[in-house]
Amino acid sequence: MTTLPDTMQGAVLPGNSTTQLQCYPVPTPGHGEVLVRIKASTICGSDIRCIYHEHLGKGAEGYQGVIAGHEPCGQIVKVGPGCRRFGVNDRVIIYHISGCGVCNDCRRGYMISCTSEKYRRAYGWQRDGGMAGYMLAEEKDLVHLPDQLSYADGAQVACGFGTVYEGLEKIGISGNDSVLITGLGPVGLATAALCRKLGASQIIGIDVIEERMKLARDLGLCDETLVSGPDNVEQVRKLTGGHGVERAVDCSAHAGARATAIRATRKWGRMVFIGEGGKIEFNPSPDMIHDQKTIYGSWVTSIWKMEELVERLVRWNLHPDELITHRFPIEKVGDAYTLMASGKCGKVAVCFDEELKK
Amino acid sequence: MTTLPDTMQGAVLPGNSTTQLQCYPVPTPGHGEVLVRIKASTICGSDIRCIYHEHLGKGAEGYQGVIAGHEPCGQIVKVGPGCRRFGVNDRVIIYHISGCGVCNDCRRGYMISCTSEKYRRAYGWQRDGGMAGYMLAEEKDLVHLPDQLSYADGAQVACGFGTVYEGLEKIGISGNDSVLITGLGPVGLATAALCRKLGASQIIGIDVIEERMKLARDLGLCDETLVSGPDNVEQVRKLTGGHGVERAVDCSAHAGARATAIRATRKWGRMVFIGEGGKIEFNPSPDMIHDQKTIYGSWVTSIWKMEELVERLVRWNLHPDELITHRFPIEKVGDAYTLMASGKCGKVAVCFDEELKK
Amino acid sequence: MTTLPDTMQGAVLPGNSTTQLQCYPVPTPGHGEVLVRIKASTICGSDIRCIYHEHLGKGAEGYQGVIAGHEPCGQIVKVGPGCRRFGVNDRVIIYHISGCGVCNDCRRGYMISCTSEKYRRAYGWQRDGGMAGYMLAEEKDLVHLPDQLSYADGAQVACGFGTVYEGLEKIGISGNDSVLITGLGPVGLATAALCRKLGASQIIGIDVIEERMKLARDLGLCDETLVSGPDNVEQVRKLTGGHGVERAVDCSAHAGARATAIRATRKWGRMVFIGEGGKIEFNPSPDMIHDQKTIYGSWVTSIWKMEELVERLVRWNLHPDELITHRFPIEKVGDAYTLMASGKCGKVAVCFDEELKK
Amino acid sequence: MTTLPDTMQGAVLPGNSTTQLQCYPVPTPGHGEVLVRIKASTICGSDIRCIYHEHLGKGAEGYQGVIAGHEPCGQIVKVGPGCRRFGVNDRVIIYHISGCGVCNDCRRGYMISCTSEKYRRAYGWQRDGGMAGYMLAEEKDLVHLPDQLSYADGAQVACGFGTVYEGLEKIGISGNDSVLITGLGPVGLATAALCRKLGASQIIGIDVIEERMKLARDLGLCDETLVSGPDNVEQVRKLTGGHGVERAVDCSAHAGARATAIRATRKWGRMVFIGEGGKIEFNPSPDMIHDQKTIYGSWVTSIWKMEELVERLVRWNLHPDELITHRFPIEKVGDAYTLMASGKCGKVAVCFDEELKK
Repeated sequence: MTTLPDTMQGAVLPGNSTTQLQCYPVPTPGHGEVLVRIKASTICGSDIRCIYHEHLGKGAEGYQGVIAGHEPCGQIVKVGPGCRRFGVNDRVIIYHISGCGVCNDCRRGYMISCTSEKYRRAYGWQRDGGMAGYMLAEEKDLVHLPDQLSYADGAQVACGFGTVYEGLEKIGISGNDSVLITGLGPVGLATAALCRKLGASQIIGIDVIEERMKLARDLGLCDETLVSGPDNVEQVRKLTGGHGVERAVDCSAHAGARATAIRATRKWGRMVFIGEGGKIEFNPSPDMIHDQKTIYGSWVTSIWKMEELVERLVRWNLHPDELITHRFPIEKVGDAYTLMASGKCGKVAVCFDEELKK
Repeated sequence: MTTLPDTMQGAVLPGNSTTQLQCYPVPTPGHGEVLVRIKASTICGSDIRCIYHEHLGKGAEGYQGVIAGHEPCGQIVKVGPGCRRFGVNDRVIIYHISGCGVCNDCRRGYMISCTSEKYRRAYGWQRDGGMAGYMLAEEKDLVHLPDQLSYADGAQVACGFGTVYEGLEKIGISGNDSVLITGLGPVGLATAALCRKLGASQIIGIDVIEERMKLARDLGLCDETLVSGPDNVEQVRKLTGGHGVERAVDCSAHAGARATAIRATRKWGRMVFIGEGGKIEFNPSPDMIHDQKTIYGSWVTSIWKMEELVERLVRWNLHPDELITHRFPIEKVGDAYTLMASGKCGKVAVCFDEELKK
Repeated sequence: MTTLPDTMQGAVLPGNSTTQLQCYPVPTPGHGEVLVRIKASTICGSDIRCIYHEHLGKGAEGYQGVIAGHEPCGQIVKVGPGCRRFGVNDRVIIYHISGCGVCNDCRRGYMISCTSEKYRRAYGWQRDGGMAGYMLAEEKDLVHLPDQLSYADGAQVACGFGTVYEGLEKIGISGNDSVLITGLGPVGLATAALCRKLGASQIIGIDVIEERMKLARDLGLCDETLVSGPDNVEQVRKLTGGHGVERAVDCSAHAGARATAIRATRKWGRMVFIGEGGKIEFNPSPDMIHDQKTIYGSWVTSIWKMEELVERLVRWNLHPDELITHRFPIEKVGDAYTLMASGKCGKVAVCFDEELKK
Repeated sequence: MTTLPDTMQGAVLPGNSTTQLQCYPVPTPGHGEVLVRIKASTICGSDIRCIYHEHLGKGAEGYQGVIAGHEPCGQIVKVGPGCRRFGVNDRVIIYHISGCGVCNDCRRGYMISCTSEKYRRAYGWQRDGGMAGYMLAEEKDLVHLPDQLSYADGAQVACGFGTVYEGLEKIGISGNDSVLITGLGPVGLATAALCRKLGASQIIGIDVIEERMKLARDLGLCDETLVSGPDNVEQVRKLTGGHGVERAVDCSAHAGARATAIRATRKWGRMVFIGEGGKIEFNPSPDMIHDQKTIYGSWVTSIWKMEELVERLVRWNLHPDELITHRFPIEKVGDAYTLMASGKCGKVAVCFDEELKK
C-alpha cells in the first residue's frame, strides 16, 4: 500500500453558482468506518438545483458546507476498528445517506428515510462527500463493486440507477410491457437502460430537448421519442395499438408530463413517480378510476436492493458509465459544475487515478 | 307459481327532478334471459346526480329514457331458453351493467368496462332497470342471493358494496390497518362496514354533515369521526400514534378530502379512490414519493368477486339493508327520489311484496 | 363463401394405440355457436397418455368417444344466432374446454375449472374436437387470431403456450431472473420461448433426451442444458454464481426433477409446477423454509389471459409453429399419432388447406 | 441505578437432559453493545429438541456450550460506546440471532440468514443467551418494548410470535379468510392468536393432544378443533361450506398434517410452512395444480417486521404472556426445562424481579 498523503483538496459549494477548493487533512476512520480513495464522483441534478445555484432546504436536510458530492465511488485504503465485511483494497460504492442504522427505516435498508435527527447525514450534504481525494464512509453504507464494473459505473449506482431500479421494481417491468418515460435527463436515460435489460418490449421517451431525445435513440435506449406536447397521449396510444402503455415512469417532475404519464397508461396499468418536486393535477374518474390504474411514489432505494442491482448490472453487462460524457480532475471541479449546470452534457464526473485517464 | 300480470308500472326520469310512472307490458325473456320479480330497488347517488336532476352523460353511457333503477334485486319468475344455471324461484342480484359477455373486459368479469358499443347496456340507463314490478335480465348478469340475505341486502351488493369491496381488495385491509374514510355517504358507510369485517383495527371517518357522522358512530362503523377541515391530517396523525393510517379510502370525490387522504396515509401506505368525479391536486414529492405511498383507482367490480362478496356477507352476518332508512311502494317512487335528492336519509328503496312490509 | 360439404371425416381414438377415421355430417351451429373450418390441429402429450394408448380418466373428465383434438385452430364459416363478437371469416383459436359460462370459475375466465357437471365439456374429450374438417365451437370459447399469426401458431396457444404463460405470470419473469426449466418437451420448450421474450437473463434446461436438449440449444431457447442427474443442483448453482436460479418451472412431472427445481432455486425464489401427474417429496426446512421460497401450482389459464398472450405473441414476433416438426393431412391422422407416441419429433399437427402446404 | 453485581448465575445445557448452573462474571458491553438485565426468558421447543436432550446440529449452527436461552427480554442497565438509539432503562426485546449486520441478508433485516460464518451467532446457541441474570446484546439486535407490554410478552416476540407473523404476512390474513392451523403447540397457539387479531373469520385447529385443543378452545383462539386423522380434509371442507379454507398454516412439521393442510385448502388458496423438520409428500396435480394453490416457506422474520409486530400487539391489546403457564427462578431452571420437555404445559419461563412475582 502506498503511503497516504496528509492533506487533500475538497470542493465546497457556496451557493452562488461557484465552487471552492479547500485543503483538508486526510481523515482517519473511526469505529465502523473506512477511508475511501475516491476514483469517480458524479454530479447529480439535485446538486445543481439545491446546492450549487442556491442552498435550498434548511435544517437537517439542508447543505451544511461540507465537501460536496453524493455519488462517490472508490477503493478502501484504510479501515477503522470494528469493520466486519470490508477491507483494504476493496472497491466500493457508497449508499449516499448515512443513517443511524438502528431506526425502523434504516433496518429496512432505507437509510434515506432514517428518522434520527442526529445521525441521518447525507454524504455531500451533511457530511463530507466525494468531491475530494479521500472520503470517510461507514462500513454499513458500502456496497461491493465487482471487478466487471468501473468506478464510474459505481458512482451512478447509489443515487441514480438505484433510485430508478427501486421504482421499476415497484411497478414491475418485463417483456409484457410497453413503457413510457417522461423526462430523458440522466434519470430518464437510466430508466430506459434498465427497462431494456428488464425486458420491456417497447420504450417510448418524451422530452423537450432534441439533444436528449437523440441521445436516447442513438444509445438504443428508446424505440420512440416524442416532443413534449398536448398530443402526447394520442401519440402514445397510436404507438401501442390504441391501448396505451402498460407501465409509465415520470422522471420529469413536470405537472403536465405527469398527467400525460397517467393518461397514456393502459387499463389496469401502473406508473411510478420518481422525478422530484413540482405538482400534479388530474381528474381521478377518467384518468385513473375507470381504467383501474395505480400510481406509485418511489424514493431512492434500500442498500440491499442496491446490492441486487449491482449483481444484475454485471449479469446484464450494463455499464452506467456510458452515460458519462465529460470527466474532470478535482482541480477543474469548477468547470465540471459549470458544464452540468449548463445542461449541455450527459453525466459529468470528477475523477481520479485510472478513471481520469479514460 | 302465480300467474303473471300482463302489465306493470315502471318509473322513468325525465331529468327535471321528477319521476314519471308509465305502464309497460310485462316482458318475456329471450334466449339466455330471465324475468325477475323485483323485490327491492335502491337509489344510487349517481341516479340523482346524472339522471334525476338532469341527464348528464350523452351517447352510449347516457340515460336513454328506460325504466330507471340500477340496484335491483328479486326473484326469477320465468326463464328463457338457453339458461344453464338459474331457474324459476331463484333469488338473484343483478350485476348492474349488461355487457356483451365476450370482449376481454367482460371475460374478466368486468362488464362495467365492456368495450362493445352495441351490447354494453347498463340496467336503468340503457336498458330497463329495477323501478318496476318486473325486469328482464341476462342470466350471465345474475348473482345468487343466499337465503340468509334479504332482497334489500342484495339490492346494495351490485353497485354499492361490490364497488367498495373491489377497492378494499386492491389495497388489502386486515387487522394490521387503521383506515381513513373520506366521505360518509352510503358508499363511505359501506366502506366502514366492510373494513370492520375485514378486521381493520381502527376506522376513522371524515365528513361535513354531522348526521352522517353520528350515523357512522351509532352503527359502530367508525371509531372516530372528524369534521372535514384543514386540521384533518394533523388530527388523523394524532389518532394513530403520529404515524398516519395504513390505508385510506376516498368516497367523497372531493379534491380537498382526496389530498387529506393522501397526506394522512402512513409511510408505505396505500389508498384507493372510489368516489366519482372531481379533481385532485397534490405535491408528489412530500405527499407520495418520500413516503413510498401508492394510490389505486378502482371502478365497480367483477361479477365473480361480487359472488365472493355475497359469500362473505353470509359468513360475516353483515346486512347491507341496515343502511336503508326508508322504503316506498312503486306508486310513491316520486317521494323516494325526492327524499334521496334531499340527502336527509340513508339509503332509500322502492320495494315490493315482503320487502315492502318490513 | 364456398359451399360447405355435407359430410366430413373425423378421427376417434379407440384407446388401443390406433385411430379411426369416421364420416360425420358437417354440423350446424346452434345459438351462440359457430362452425369453424379447421386449419391446424396439434396433438398434446395428454392425448397420447390419457386417450390414445388407453382411456384413462372416467366419468365427466374421461374421453367419451368424440372426435379427438383439443388444440384446434381455424376460420369461422358459419355463425349461429346470438353471436355478438365473432363472424364469418374470422380466424379463431378455441379455448379447449367449453364450460357453462356462468359458474364462478367460468366467470373468472377459467373454464378449465367449470363446476357444472352438465356443461363442462372439453373439446376432443367430451365434445367433438379438431381432428376433422369442421368443428362446432361456442362463441364464448373463441379467441381472435391476428393476421400476423398462422393457424399453426394458434393451435398451440390454447393448451400449450397459454398454460405456460399463466404459470410464468404467477411467478413473474423479467430480466432480473435466471430460470431453470425441468423437462424440455413441447411444454418446456414453450416455457423457454416465453421466458426469453419476457426478458429472462439466463435460461437453463434439464432433460434426459439429448435430442430435446439439442433442439433447445439450436433454437436459442436455452443458454445451458443439463442431463438430468444427481448433480443438477450443484451444476445450476455453479452456472448462477453460487446462488441458484431466481425462478424455476417444472414441466416434467417427475418427482426427482421437481425436487431439483426446488433445491436449485435461490433464497426468496419462486417456482411453479406445470407438468401434470406424479408425486413430489422433499424436506421443507432446508428446501423451502430456510430460504423463504414459494411454490405455485398452475393449471391452464383464463380465456382473457389467453387473449393477452396472443397480443404479446404478435408484439414479440414469436411463432409457436416453429416447434412443429411434422404436418399430416387428416387422411394420415394415424401416422400423426403414431409419430407423436414415438416421441421422435417436436409438435405434430394435422393440417388442412394452406396450413397443409407449408 | 443500583450497583451491578460482579457475578451471576447462568444455565448451560450439557445435552443429556440436564441443566447446569454456573457462575459467570457480569459482562461489560463493548462498542455497540448493551448489558441487559434479564426479566423473562422463555424456553423454545427447539431448545428441548436440539440442545437439551442432545446436541443436534454441528459447526456454525450448533450449540457451543454458552449460556442457553434465545427468547430473552429485559431492561438495559449499561450501554457501551457507539450506541445510537437505546439507553439505560430502556425495556428491550432481543432479536435472537446476532448477524454481522452488513451482509445482504442482515441488511434486509433477516439476521437469521446472515451469511457471515464468523459473525452469525445466535443468542443461547453460539453466544450467551437469556438464562442468566444479565446478557450482552448488540444494539442492532434490540427492539423497543413498549410499556403496555410485559417482559414476558416480549420474550415471546422474537422467536415465536415474530416467526408466525412473518408467515402470516406472506400469505395474507384478513376477514376474508377461514384459516386451518395444523399443530397447536405454542407456535400454533400464537398463530391462532394473531389470525384472530388480523381478522380471520374462522379458525380451525388440528392436533393430537386433547389438552392442547382444549386450551385453544378455552382461550377462544380456535373456533373448531379436530383430532388429527384421515378424515381431516373432509371435516375441514364440511366446516367451510364444502370449499376448504382460504389459508392454512402448518406448525406441526408432520408430513401427514402438512398434506392435510395442502388438501384442505380452497381453490386459489395459500398456505405457509412454519413448523421445522420432517418431510412432505404429495401429488401436485390434484393437490396443488388443479386448484391453483400456492405454498410458502417462511423462516423467522426481519427485525423491522418484529418492530411492526410489537406496535400491533399494543394496538390489539394482545398479550403473548397469556400462553405462559409456568414461571421459575433461575435457581430452578432445571425444573423449567424438565417441565417443558414433558410437554405438560404451555410456555415455560425463567423469570427475574417483577416478572417472577406474577
